[in-house]
Amino acid sequence: MKHVLIIAHGSRRMASNNEVREVTRQFALQSHDFDQVSCAFLELDEPSIPQGLLNAIEAGATEIIVLPYFLSAGRHVSEDIPAQIAPVQDAHPQVDIKTAPYLGAASAIPHILLSQTKGV
Amino acid sequence: MKHVLIIAHGSRRMASNNEVREVTRQFALQSHDFDQVSCAFLELDEPSIPQGLLNAIEAGATEIIVLPYFLSAGRHVSEDIPAQIAPVQDAHPQVDIKTAPYLGAASAIPHILLSQTKGV
Repeated sequence: MKHVLIIAHGSRRMASNNEVREVTRQFALQSHDFDQVSCAFLELDEPSIPQGLLNAIEAGATEIIVLPYFLSAGRHVSEDIPAQIAPVQDAHPQVDIKTAPYLGAASAIPHILLSQTKGV
Repeated sequence: MKHVLIIAHGSRRMASNNEVREVTRQFALQSHDFDQVSCAFLELDEPSIPQGLLNAIEAGATEIIVLPYFLSAGRHVSEDIPAQIAPVQDAHPQVDIKTAPYLGAASAIPHILLSQTKGV
């Protein structure tokens, strides 16, 4: 069972976290390669990254793709997220947990920015 | 003369700021509707937002589209960026400064996230 876990930073502003939930919902609607899609937060909202992974595993995930909803390859992407994944992977070696490139690395980003200028 | 100013948060990590500069360069290569494209930072790197706007005006911009490189409509997008634009707009009423929807508001984001899962 393939699961995608979208990971965002999390904000004190609940509306920002709900934007992530809405992106996750849209992702699930557009995705046909995955059985389950959910989101988790590095901090400031629930579920945490470990809890999001455990929820996925309890729901039957055998393969989890972690998808960092971040714009740059900063410390959060390079260190904090892997550090939170590692203990869950160690405890569940039968589950294949992979991390996809973060959002900001997508080559389509400049094109999306361009499309935003049409919204002015 | 039409100018696009891409505004990012800015990071202590220079590599993250350089990612923004590279996105700006790619944007300029893909964009044919604008005469000039540059970037500015809310904090932690140069140019600041006011300086980025003034540079554009000095280079001859008569219309500036500000493009927030942010994922959520938080305080930075809703308050901090407008507050830094306002004095420049007041001092240069002949220049038309508009703000485009922030990156995270783009309806294509879930599709881009989906494409990132192919990179695993």
